[in-house]
Amino acid sequence: MLRIKIKVAYDGTNYSGWQIQSSKNRIQRTIQGELESAIYKLTGCSVRVHGSGRTDSGVHAEGQVAHFDIPEKYLKLNWITALKSKLPSDISIITADLVDDTFHARFSSIKKTYSYSLWLDYEVIYPRMLPYCWQCGPLDIDRIIKAADDLIGEHDFASFQNVGSIVLDTTRCLYSITHFYSSISGVFQDERLLKYKHLCLQFTGNGFLKQMVRNLVGLLVLIGQSKLNINDAKTILNSKSRSEYYFPTAPAKGLTLTSVDYL
Amino acid sequence: MLRIKIKVAYDGTNYSGWQIQSSKNRIQRTIQGELESAIYKLTGCSVRVHGSGRTDSGVHAEGQVAHFDIPEKYLKLNWITALKSKLPSDISIITADLVDDTFHARFSSIKKTYSYSLWLDYEVIYPRMLPYCWQCGPLDIDRIIKAADDLIGEHDFASFQNVGSIVLDTTRCLYSITHFYSSISGVFQDERLLKYKHLCLQFTGNGFLKQMVRNLVGLLVLIGQSKLNINDAKTILNSKSRSEYYFPTAPAKGLTLTSVDYL
Repeated sequence: MLRIKIKVAYDGTNYSGWQIQSSKNRIQRTIQGELESAIYKLTGCSVRVHGSGRTDSGVHAEGQVAHFDIPEKYLKLNWITALKSKLPSDISIITADLVDDTFHARFSSIKKTYSYSLWLDYEVIYPRMLPYCWQCGPLDIDRIIKAADDLIGEHDFASFQNVGSIVLDTTRCLYSITHFYSSISGVFQDERLLKYKHLCLQFTGNGFLKQMVRNLVGLLVLIGQSKLNINDAKTILNSKSRSEYYFPTAPAKGLTLTSVDYL
Repeated sequence: MLRIKIKVAYDGTNYSGWQIQSSKNRIQRTIQGELESAIYKLTGCSVRVHGSGRTDSGVHAEGQVAHFDIPEKYLKLNWITALKSKLPSDISIITADLVDDTFHARFSSIKKTYSYSLWLDYEVIYPRMLPYCWQCGPLDIDRIIKAADDLIGEHDFASFQNVGSIVLDTTRCLYSITHFYSSISGVFQDERLLKYKHLCLQFTGNGFLKQMVRNLVGLLVLIGQSKLNINDAKTILNSKSRSEYYFPTAPAKGLTLTSVDYL
Protein backbone atom coordinates (compact mmCIF):
# COMPACT_ATOMS: atom_id res chain seq x y z
CA MET A 1 0.00 0.00 0.00
CA LEU A 2 1.01 3.59 -0.58
CA ARG A 3 0.46 6.30 2.02
CA ILE A 4 -0.54 9.65 0.53
CA LYS A 5 -0.31 12.90 2.50
CA ILE A 6 -2.54 15.69 1.24
CA LYS A 7 -2.82 19.35 2.16
CA VAL A 8 -6.41 20.50 1.81
CA ALA A 9 -8.00 23.95 1.60
CA TYR A 10 -11.73 24.35 2.05
CA ASP A 11 -14.43 26.90 2.49
CA GLY A 12 -16.25 25.48 5.50
CA THR A 13 -19.41 27.55 5.04
CA ASN A 14 -21.54 24.74 3.67
CA TYR A 15 -20.14 21.85 5.72
CA SER A 16 -20.88 20.26 9.07
CA GLY A 17 -17.16 20.33 9.83
CA TRP A 18 -14.37 17.93 9.01
CA GLN A 19 -15.55 14.71 10.54
CA ILE A 20 -18.11 12.31 9.10
CA GLN A 21 -21.25 12.51 11.22
CA SER A 22 -23.52 9.65 11.93
CA SER A 23 -27.07 10.86 12.11
CA LYS A 24 -30.26 8.83 12.06
CA ASN A 25 -32.22 11.33 10.09
CA ARG A 26 -30.00 12.85 7.49
CA ILE A 27 -26.65 12.72 5.82
CA GLN A 28 -24.55 15.72 6.73
CA ARG A 29 -21.95 17.06 4.33
CA THR A 30 -18.46 16.88 5.80
CA ILE A 31 -15.00 17.48 4.39
CA GLN A 32 -13.82 14.00 5.33
CA GLY A 33 -16.93 12.51 3.73
CA GLU A 34 -16.39 14.44 0.49
CA LEU A 35 -12.74 13.38 0.31
CA GLU A 36 -13.50 9.70 0.92
CA SER A 37 -16.30 9.84 -1.63
CA ALA A 38 -14.02 11.49 -4.22
CA ILE A 39 -11.33 8.83 -3.69
CA TYR A 40 -13.97 6.12 -4.04
CA LYS A 41 -15.30 7.61 -7.29
CA LEU A 42 -11.76 7.78 -8.64
CA THR A 43 -10.42 4.38 -7.57
CA GLY A 44 -13.29 2.26 -6.34
CA CYS A 45 -11.43 1.96 -3.05
CA SER A 46 -13.20 2.65 0.24
CA VAL A 47 -10.52 4.37 2.26
CA ARG A 48 -10.45 6.18 5.55
CA VAL A 49 -9.03 9.69 5.29
CA HIS A 50 -7.29 10.63 8.56
CA GLY A 51 -7.14 14.35 9.27
CA SER A 52 -4.70 16.19 11.54
CA GLY A 53 -7.75 16.96 13.64
CA ARG A 54 -11.37 17.94 13.31
CA THR A 55 -12.52 21.38 12.32
CA ASP A 56 -15.93 22.50 13.57
CA SER A 57 -18.94 23.13 11.42
CA GLY A 58 -18.38 26.32 9.43
CA VAL A 59 -14.62 26.54 10.10
CA HIS A 60 -12.38 27.03 7.05
CA ALA A 61 -8.96 25.63 6.22
CA GLU A 62 -6.08 26.66 4.02
CA GLY A 63 -3.69 24.00 5.20
CA GLN A 64 -5.50 21.06 6.75
CA VAL A 65 -3.38 17.92 6.43
CA ALA A 66 -4.68 14.37 6.02
CA HIS A 67 -3.45 10.97 4.88
CA PHE A 68 -4.87 7.79 3.39
CA ASP A 69 -3.59 4.43 2.15
CA ILE A 70 -4.13 3.23 -1.39
CA PRO A 71 -2.92 0.28 -3.53
CA GLU A 72 0.52 0.45 -5.14
CA LYS A 73 -0.91 0.69 -8.64
CA TYR A 74 -1.77 4.36 -8.02
CA LEU A 75 1.91 5.28 -7.62
CA LYS A 76 1.98 7.60 -10.64
CA LEU A 77 -1.43 9.21 -10.19
CA ASN A 78 -1.52 13.02 -9.97
CA TRP A 79 -3.85 13.25 -6.99
CA ILE A 80 -4.27 17.02 -7.21
CA THR A 81 -5.72 16.90 -10.70
CA ALA A 82 -7.49 13.59 -10.35
CA LEU A 83 -9.33 14.52 -7.16
CA LYS A 84 -10.16 18.00 -8.48
CA SER A 85 -12.60 16.50 -10.96
CA LYS A 86 -14.37 14.53 -8.20
CA LEU A 87 -14.48 17.18 -5.47
CA PRO A 88 -16.88 20.10 -5.09
CA SER A 89 -15.26 23.45 -5.89
CA ASP A 90 -15.17 24.52 -2.24
CA ILE A 91 -12.63 21.80 -1.41
CA SER A 92 -9.21 21.90 -3.04
CA ILE A 93 -6.10 19.73 -2.77
CA ILE A 94 -3.06 22.00 -2.43
CA THR A 95 -0.32 19.35 -2.30
CA ALA A 96 -0.21 15.53 -2.47
CA ASP A 97 2.91 13.58 -1.56
CA LEU A 98 3.91 10.00 -1.07
CA VAL A 99 5.01 9.51 2.54
CA ASP A 100 6.48 6.78 4.67
CA ASP A 101 3.92 4.59 6.40
CA THR A 102 5.14 5.85 9.76
CA PHE A 103 3.60 9.22 8.92
CA HIS A 104 0.26 9.94 10.56
CA ALA A 105 -1.59 13.20 9.90
CA ARG A 106 -2.77 13.41 13.49
CA PHE A 107 -0.12 11.73 15.62
CA SER A 108 2.93 13.00 13.73
CA SER A 109 1.91 16.66 13.88
CA ILE A 110 4.07 18.85 16.10
CA LYS A 111 2.52 22.28 15.58
CA LYS A 112 -0.67 23.85 14.32
CA THR A 113 -1.54 27.40 13.36
CA TYR A 114 -5.02 28.89 13.29
CA SER A 115 -5.94 32.36 12.09
CA TYR A 116 -8.97 34.26 13.28
CA SER A 117 -10.29 37.22 11.26
CA LEU A 118 -11.95 40.09 13.08
CA TRP A 119 -13.63 43.03 11.39
CA LEU A 120 -13.36 46.14 13.55
CA ASP A 121 -16.24 48.20 12.20
CA TYR A 122 -19.90 47.60 12.98
CA GLU A 123 -21.27 49.70 10.15
CA VAL A 124 -19.07 49.25 7.13
CA ILE A 125 -17.82 45.95 5.76
CA TYR A 126 -16.89 44.65 2.33
CA PRO A 127 -19.48 42.04 1.32
CA ARG A 128 -16.86 39.50 0.37
CA MET A 129 -15.50 39.51 3.94
CA LEU A 130 -18.83 38.50 5.52
CA PRO A 131 -18.42 34.71 5.32
CA TYR A 132 -14.85 34.84 6.69
CA CYS A 133 -14.79 37.09 9.73
CA TRP A 134 -16.48 38.13 12.95
CA GLN A 135 -17.76 41.69 12.66
CA CYS A 136 -17.06 42.45 16.31
CA GLY A 137 -16.62 46.23 16.03
CA PRO A 138 -13.86 48.47 17.46
CA LEU A 139 -11.22 46.91 19.72
CA ASP A 140 -8.36 48.24 21.81
CA ILE A 141 -5.56 46.11 20.38
CA ASP A 142 -3.07 47.01 23.10
CA ARG A 143 -5.35 45.44 25.68
CA ILE A 144 -5.57 42.27 23.59
CA ILE A 145 -1.78 42.05 23.22
CA LYS A 146 -1.29 42.43 26.97
CA ALA A 147 -3.93 39.84 27.82
CA ALA A 148 -2.54 37.41 25.20
CA ASP A 149 0.80 37.51 27.02
CA ASP A 150 -0.75 35.71 29.99
CA LEU A 151 -2.13 32.94 27.79
CA ILE A 152 1.06 32.06 25.91
CA GLY A 153 3.06 29.09 27.18
CA GLU A 154 2.22 25.68 28.59
CA HIS A 155 -0.99 25.78 30.57
CA ASP A 156 -4.00 23.73 31.48
CA PHE A 157 -6.48 25.26 29.02
CA ALA A 158 -9.57 23.58 30.54
CA SER A 159 -11.25 27.03 30.75
CA PHE A 160 -11.15 27.28 26.97
CA GLN A 161 -12.51 23.86 26.20
CA ASN A 162 -16.07 23.40 25.13
CA VAL A 163 -18.42 22.39 27.95
CA GLY A 164 -19.17 18.70 27.55
CA SER A 165 -15.87 17.81 25.91
CA ILE A 166 -14.14 14.76 27.35
CA VAL A 167 -10.38 15.05 27.16
CA LEU A 168 -8.26 13.66 29.99
CA ASP A 169 -5.29 15.93 29.54
CA THR A 170 -6.20 19.55 28.87
CA THR A 171 -2.65 20.86 29.02
CA ARG A 172 -1.38 22.39 25.79
CA CYS A 173 1.51 24.61 24.82
CA LEU A 174 0.49 27.81 23.07
CA TYR A 175 3.69 29.00 21.37
CA SER A 176 2.45 32.37 20.18
CA ILE A 177 -0.47 34.70 19.58
CA THR A 178 0.44 37.20 16.90
CA HIS A 179 -1.67 39.85 15.24
CA PHE A 180 -1.55 41.72 11.98
CA TYR A 181 -3.78 43.94 9.93
CA SER A 182 -4.61 42.56 6.56
CA SER A 183 -6.03 43.74 3.31
CA ILE A 184 -8.90 41.63 2.13
CA SER A 185 -8.24 40.52 -1.38
CA GLY A 186 -5.18 42.70 -1.75
CA VAL A 187 -6.86 44.67 -4.52
CA PHE A 188 -8.10 47.61 -2.52
CA GLN A 189 -7.15 51.10 -3.43
CA ASP A 190 -9.18 52.37 -0.57
CA GLU A 191 -6.68 51.44 2.12
CA ARG A 192 -6.93 54.80 3.89
CA LEU A 193 -10.46 54.03 4.93
CA LEU A 194 -10.47 50.34 5.75
CA LYS A 195 -6.84 49.30 6.12
CA TYR A 196 -7.02 48.89 9.86
CA LYS A 197 -10.41 47.22 9.94
CA HIS A 198 -9.34 43.65 9.27
CA LEU A 199 -7.41 42.25 12.22
CA CYS A 200 -6.02 38.71 12.11
CA LEU A 201 -5.14 36.94 15.32
CA GLN A 202 -2.87 33.98 14.70
CA PHE A 203 -2.49 31.15 17.22
CA THR A 204 0.34 28.61 17.07
CA GLY A 205 0.57 25.71 19.49
CA ASN A 206 1.41 22.05 19.86
CA GLY A 207 -2.28 21.23 19.88
CA PHE A 208 -5.68 22.73 20.60
CA LEU A 209 -8.71 21.59 22.56
CA LYS A 210 -12.17 21.58 21.01
CA GLN A 211 -13.18 25.20 20.27
CA MET A 212 -10.11 26.43 22.15
CA VAL A 213 -9.18 29.08 19.58
CA ARG A 214 -12.75 30.34 19.31
CA ASN A 215 -12.99 30.55 23.11
CA LEU A 216 -9.66 32.38 23.35
CA VAL A 217 -10.85 34.84 20.69
CA GLY A 218 -14.17 35.31 22.49
CA LEU A 219 -12.32 36.24 25.67
CA LEU A 220 -9.77 38.49 23.94
CA VAL A 221 -12.51 40.38 22.11
CA LEU A 222 -14.34 41.08 25.39
CA ILE A 223 -11.06 42.38 26.82
CA GLY A 224 -10.46 44.45 23.67
CA GLN A 225 -13.94 45.92 24.11
CA SER A 226 -13.07 46.77 27.74
CA LYS A 227 -15.90 44.60 28.99
CA LEU A 228 -13.39 42.51 30.93
CA ASN A 229 -10.11 43.54 32.56
CA ILE A 230 -6.78 42.63 31.04
CA ASN A 231 -5.85 40.43 34.00
CA ASP A 232 -9.15 38.54 33.77
CA ALA A 233 -7.40 36.40 31.14
CA LYS A 234 -5.12 35.00 33.83
CA THR A 235 -7.97 34.60 36.31
CA ILE A 236 -10.09 32.71 33.79
CA LEU A 237 -7.14 30.52 32.73
CA ASN A 238 -6.50 29.65 36.36
CA SER A 239 -10.17 28.90 37.06
CA LYS A 240 -9.91 25.85 34.75
CA SER A 241 -13.61 26.13 34.13
CA ARG A 242 -15.39 27.22 30.96
CA SER A 243 -18.54 28.16 32.84
CA GLU A 244 -17.30 30.12 35.87
CA TYR A 245 -16.92 33.39 33.93
CA TYR A 246 -18.98 34.47 30.95
CA PHE A 247 -17.32 35.04 27.62
CA PRO A 248 -18.59 34.14 24.16
CA THR A 249 -17.30 31.49 21.79
CA ALA A 250 -16.28 33.39 18.64
CA PRO A 251 -18.27 32.43 15.51
CA ALA A 252 -16.90 29.53 13.47
CA LYS A 253 -16.85 31.46 10.19
CA GLY A 254 -13.93 33.69 11.30
CA LEU A 255 -11.64 30.72 11.94
CA THR A 256 -9.21 29.20 9.45
CA LEU A 257 -6.86 26.28 10.05
CA THR A 258 -3.81 27.77 8.39
CA SER A 259 -1.12 25.13 8.68
CA VAL A 260 -0.08 21.89 10.35
CA ASP A 261 3.61 21.23 10.79
CA TYR A 262 5.50 17.93 11.00
CA LEU A 263 9.07 17.08 11.86
CA MET B 1 -33.19 68.81 -2.01
CA LEU B 2 -30.03 67.24 -0.63
CA ARG B 3 -27.50 65.51 -2.84
CA ILE B 4 -25.93 62.43 -1.26
CA LYS B 5 -22.74 60.86 -2.58
CA ILE B 6 -22.25 57.21 -1.65
CA LYS B 7 -19.33 54.85 -2.06
CA VAL B 8 -20.61 51.32 -2.62
CA ALA B 9 -18.92 47.91 -2.40
CA TYR B 10 -20.60 44.86 -3.87
CA ASP B 11 -20.06 41.26 -4.73
CA GLY B 12 -21.30 41.20 -8.31
CA THR B 13 -21.64 37.40 -8.52
CA ASN B 14 -25.42 37.34 -8.26
CA TYR B 15 -26.22 40.52 -10.21
CA SER B 16 -26.87 41.44 -13.81
CA GLY B 17 -24.47 44.34 -13.41
CA TRP B 18 -24.97 47.88 -12.16
CA GLN B 19 -27.65 49.21 -14.42
CA ILE B 20 -31.38 48.55 -14.18
CA GLN B 21 -32.37 46.31 -17.07
CA SER B 22 -35.67 46.45 -18.82
CA SER B 23 -36.73 43.02 -19.87
CA LYS B 24 -40.14 41.86 -21.01
CA ASN B 25 -39.92 38.48 -19.41
CA ARG B 26 -38.21 38.83 -16.09
CA ILE B 27 -36.89 41.23 -13.54
CA GLN B 28 -33.12 41.11 -13.35
CA ARG B 29 -31.34 41.93 -10.13
CA THR B 30 -29.05 44.92 -10.51
CA ILE B 31 -27.04 46.99 -8.05
CA GLN B 32 -28.75 50.22 -9.09
CA GLY B 33 -32.14 48.54 -8.72
CA GLU B 34 -31.33 47.27 -5.22
CA LEU B 35 -30.10 50.71 -4.13
CA GLU B 36 -33.18 52.52 -5.47
CA SER B 37 -35.41 49.92 -3.87
CA ALA B 38 -33.63 50.26 -0.51
CA ILE B 39 -33.97 54.07 -0.58
CA TYR B 40 -37.65 53.69 -1.44
CA LYS B 41 -38.24 51.27 1.44
CA LEU B 42 -36.50 53.69 3.79
CA THR B 43 -38.02 57.00 2.69
CA GLY B 44 -40.91 56.29 0.37
CA CYS B 45 -39.10 58.39 -2.24
CA SER B 46 -38.61 57.08 -5.77
CA VAL B 47 -35.16 58.34 -6.63
CA ARG B 48 -32.75 57.73 -9.45
CA VAL B 49 -29.34 56.60 -8.25
CA HIS B 50 -26.66 57.81 -10.67
CA GLY B 51 -23.51 55.70 -10.78
CA SER B 52 -20.04 56.73 -11.94
CA GLY B 53 -20.57 54.23 -14.71
CA ARG B 54 -21.97 50.78 -15.32
CA THR B 55 -20.29 47.61 -14.23
CA ASP B 56 -21.00 44.47 -16.26
CA SER B 57 -22.86 41.45 -15.03
CA GLY B 58 -20.68 39.60 -12.52
CA VAL B 59 -18.18 42.44 -12.00
CA HIS B 60 -17.43 43.42 -8.40
CA ALA B 61 -16.82 46.80 -6.80
CA GLU B 62 -15.03 48.03 -3.72
CA GLY B 63 -15.35 51.71 -4.50
CA GLN B 64 -18.18 52.38 -6.94
CA VAL B 65 -19.48 55.92 -6.45
CA ALA B 66 -23.06 57.10 -6.97
CA HIS B 67 -25.30 60.01 -6.03
CA PHE B 68 -28.99 60.68 -5.50
CA ASP B 69 -31.20 63.60 -4.45
CA ILE B 70 -33.48 63.41 -1.45
CA PRO B 71 -35.69 65.87 0.49
CA GLU B 72 -34.07 68.17 3.09
CA LYS B 73 -35.76 66.40 5.99
CA TYR B 74 -33.24 63.55 5.70
CA LEU B 75 -30.32 65.84 6.56
CA LYS B 76 -29.40 64.00 9.74
CA LEU B 77 -29.97 60.47 8.55
CA ASN B 78 -27.04 58.03 8.87
CA TRP B 79 -27.31 56.55 5.39
CA ILE B 80 -24.73 53.83 6.01
CA THR B 81 -26.69 52.30 8.87
CA ALA B 82 -30.13 53.06 7.51
CA LEU B 83 -29.51 51.52 4.10
CA LYS B 84 -27.71 48.53 5.60
CA SER B 85 -30.99 47.23 7.00
CA LYS B 86 -32.69 47.51 3.59
CA LEU B 87 -29.91 46.17 1.37
CA PRO B 88 -28.92 42.56 0.70
CA SER B 89 -25.68 41.57 2.42
CA ASP B 90 -23.71 41.51 -0.83
CA ILE B 91 -24.11 45.28 -1.25
CA SER B 92 -22.57 47.60 1.32
CA ILE B 93 -22.38 51.38 1.68
CA ILE B 94 -18.80 52.34 2.60
CA THR B 95 -19.23 56.10 2.89
CA ALA B 96 -22.15 58.55 2.53
CA ASP B 97 -21.60 62.29 2.32
CA LEU B 98 -23.63 65.39 1.64
CA VAL B 99 -22.30 67.05 -1.51
CA ASP B 100 -22.91 70.19 -3.49
CA ASP B 101 -25.54 69.84 -6.22
CA THR B 102 -22.87 70.49 -8.82
CA PHE B 103 -21.42 67.08 -8.00
CA HIS B 104 -22.30 64.31 -10.45
CA ALA B 105 -21.05 60.76 -9.89
CA ARG B 106 -20.49 60.23 -13.59
CA PHE B 107 -19.65 63.63 -15.05
CA SER B 108 -17.48 64.90 -12.19
CA SER B 109 -15.22 61.85 -12.11
CA ILE B 110 -11.65 62.45 -13.24
CA LYS B 111 -10.06 59.05 -12.71
CA LYS B 112 -11.04 55.42 -12.23
CA THR B 113 -9.10 52.40 -11.08
CA TYR B 114 -9.98 48.80 -11.83
CA SER B 115 -8.18 45.74 -10.47
CA TYR B 116 -8.11 42.40 -12.21
CA SER B 117 -7.19 39.24 -10.27
CA LEU B 118 -5.40 36.45 -12.06
CA TRP B 119 -4.60 33.06 -10.55
CA LEU B 120 -1.42 31.65 -12.05
CA ASP B 121 -1.89 27.94 -11.34
CA TYR B 122 -4.21 25.63 -13.24
CA GLU B 123 -4.23 22.86 -10.68
CA VAL B 124 -4.19 24.39 -7.24
CA ILE B 125 -6.43 27.22 -6.05
CA TYR B 126 -7.92 28.24 -2.73
CA PRO B 127 -11.68 27.74 -2.93
CA ARG B 128 -12.42 31.22 -1.62
CA MET B 129 -10.58 32.76 -4.58
CA LEU B 130 -12.77 31.08 -7.20
CA PRO B 131 -15.50 33.73 -7.46
CA TYR B 132 -12.97 36.58 -7.66
CA CYS B 133 -10.30 35.65 -10.18
CA TRP B 134 -9.52 34.18 -13.56
CA GLN B 135 -7.59 30.93 -13.16
CA CYS B 136 -5.52 31.51 -16.29
CA GLY B 137 -2.47 29.44 -15.35
CA PRO B 138 1.23 30.36 -15.54
CA LEU B 139 2.23 33.70 -17.13
CA ASP B 140 5.49 35.36 -18.04
CA ILE B 141 5.04 38.64 -16.19
CA ASP B 142 7.95 40.37 -17.88
CA ARG B 143 6.21 39.98 -21.22
CA ILE B 144 3.04 41.50 -19.78
CA ILE B 145 4.91 44.47 -18.33
CA LYS B 146 6.60 45.15 -21.66
CA ALA B 147 3.35 44.88 -23.63
CA ALA B 148 1.52 47.08 -21.11
CA ASP B 149 4.03 49.84 -21.81
CA ASP B 150 2.65 50.20 -25.33
CA LEU B 151 -0.90 50.57 -24.05
CA ILE B 152 -0.33 53.30 -21.48
CA GLY B 153 -1.08 56.86 -22.53
CA GLU B 154 -3.75 58.57 -24.60
CA HIS B 155 -4.92 56.32 -27.41
CA ASP B 156 -7.93 55.43 -29.47
CA PHE B 157 -8.90 52.21 -27.65
CA ALA B 158 -11.48 51.09 -30.24
CA SER B 159 -9.74 47.68 -30.44
CA PHE B 160 -10.62 47.07 -26.82
CA GLN B 161 -14.26 48.03 -26.99
CA ASN B 162 -16.94 45.44 -27.10
CA VAL B 163 -18.21 44.68 -30.58
CA GLY B 164 -21.58 46.35 -31.00
CA SER B 165 -20.88 49.21 -28.58
CA ILE B 166 -21.81 52.65 -29.86
CA VAL B 167 -19.51 55.35 -28.53
CA LEU B 168 -18.52 58.23 -30.78
CA ASP B 169 -15.21 59.02 -29.14
CA THR B 170 -13.16 55.96 -28.26
CA THR B 171 -10.08 57.91 -27.15
CA ARG B 172 -9.16 57.44 -23.51
CA CYS B 173 -6.10 58.14 -21.41
CA LEU B 174 -4.76 55.10 -19.58
CA TYR B 175 -2.52 56.57 -16.88
CA SER B 176 -1.01 53.35 -15.62
CA ILE B 177 -1.06 49.56 -15.58
CA THR B 178 0.57 48.31 -12.41
CA HIS B 179 0.92 44.80 -11.07
CA PHE B 180 1.45 43.24 -7.70
CA TYR B 181 1.29 39.84 -6.10
CA SER B 182 -1.25 39.59 -3.37
CA SER B 183 -2.09 37.27 -0.54
CA ILE B 184 -5.68 36.18 -0.63
CA SER B 185 -7.23 36.86 2.71
CA GLY B 186 -3.95 37.85 4.29
CA VAL B 187 -4.20 34.96 6.72
CA PHE B 188 -2.04 32.44 4.91
CA GLN B 189 0.90 30.84 6.55
CA ASP B 190 1.55 28.89 3.43
CA GLU B 191 3.07 31.78 1.51
CA ARG B 192 6.03 29.75 0.24
CA LEU B 193 3.72 27.67 -1.89
CA LEU B 194 1.14 30.09 -3.19
CA LYS B 195 2.53 33.58 -2.62
CA TYR B 196 3.21 34.24 -6.27
CA LYS B 197 0.03 32.70 -7.59
CA HIS B 198 -2.30 35.67 -7.17
CA LEU B 199 -1.40 38.45 -9.57
CA CYS B 200 -3.36 41.71 -9.59
CA LEU B 201 -3.26 43.97 -12.61
CA GLN B 202 -4.43 47.47 -11.79
CA PHE B 203 -5.62 49.90 -14.46
CA THR B 204 -6.00 53.62 -13.85
CA GLY B 205 -7.39 55.95 -16.49
CA ASN B 206 -9.59 58.96 -17.13
CA GLY B 207 -12.34 56.63 -18.36
CA PHE B 208 -12.89 53.20 -19.82
CA LEU B 209 -14.91 51.86 -22.75
CA LYS B 210 -17.35 48.99 -22.31
CA GLN B 211 -15.37 45.84 -21.39
CA MET B 212 -12.12 47.71 -22.08
CA VAL B 213 -10.32 46.39 -18.98
CA ARG B 214 -11.46 42.82 -19.60
CA ASN B 215 -10.31 43.05 -23.23
CA LEU B 216 -6.94 44.51 -22.20
CA VAL B 217 -6.52 41.68 -19.68
CA GLY B 218 -7.53 39.09 -22.29
CA LEU B 219 -4.81 40.38 -24.62
CA LEU B 220 -2.15 40.69 -21.90
CA VAL B 221 -2.81 37.13 -20.72
CA LEU B 222 -2.32 35.77 -24.25
CA ILE B 223 0.96 37.68 -24.43
CA GLY B 224 1.96 36.40 -20.99
CA GLN B 225 1.23 32.86 -22.22
CA SER B 226 3.46 33.52 -25.27
CA LYS B 227 0.53 32.88 -27.59
CA LEU B 228 0.95 36.40 -28.98
CA ASN B 229 4.08 38.49 -29.40
CA ILE B 230 4.85 41.41 -27.11
CA ASN B 231 4.56 43.93 -29.95
CA ASP B 232 1.18 42.54 -30.97
CA ALA B 233 -0.24 44.85 -28.29
CA LYS B 234 0.77 47.86 -30.36
CA THR B 235 -0.42 46.27 -33.61
CA ILE B 236 -3.82 45.47 -32.13
CA LEU B 237 -4.13 48.95 -30.58
CA ASN B 238 -3.36 50.51 -33.97
CA SER B 239 -5.82 48.27 -35.82
CA LYS B 240 -8.70 50.03 -34.00
CA SER B 241 -10.78 46.92 -34.48
CA ARG B 242 -11.88 44.42 -31.85
CA SER B 243 -12.40 41.69 -34.42
CA GLU B 244 -9.30 41.84 -36.61
CA TYR B 245 -7.16 39.81 -34.18
CA TYR B 246 -8.38 37.14 -31.84
CA PHE B 247 -7.98 37.58 -28.12
CA PRO B 248 -10.45 36.67 -25.36
CA THR B 249 -12.44 38.98 -23.12
CA ALA B 250 -11.34 38.12 -19.58
CA PRO B 251 -14.14 36.74 -17.35
CA ALA B 252 -16.19 39.31 -15.43
CA LYS B 253 -15.65 37.66 -12.04
CA GLY B 254 -11.96 38.66 -11.90
CA LEU B 255 -12.73 42.38 -12.24
CA THR B 256 -13.25 44.84 -9.40
CA LEU B 257 -13.98 48.55 -9.69
CA THR B 258 -11.59 49.71 -7.01
CA SER B 259 -11.99 53.47 -6.87
CA VAL B 260 -13.39 56.53 -8.60
CA ASP B 261 -11.65 59.84 -8.03
CA TYR B 262 -13.04 63.38 -8.13
CA LEU B 263 -11.41 66.78 -8.01
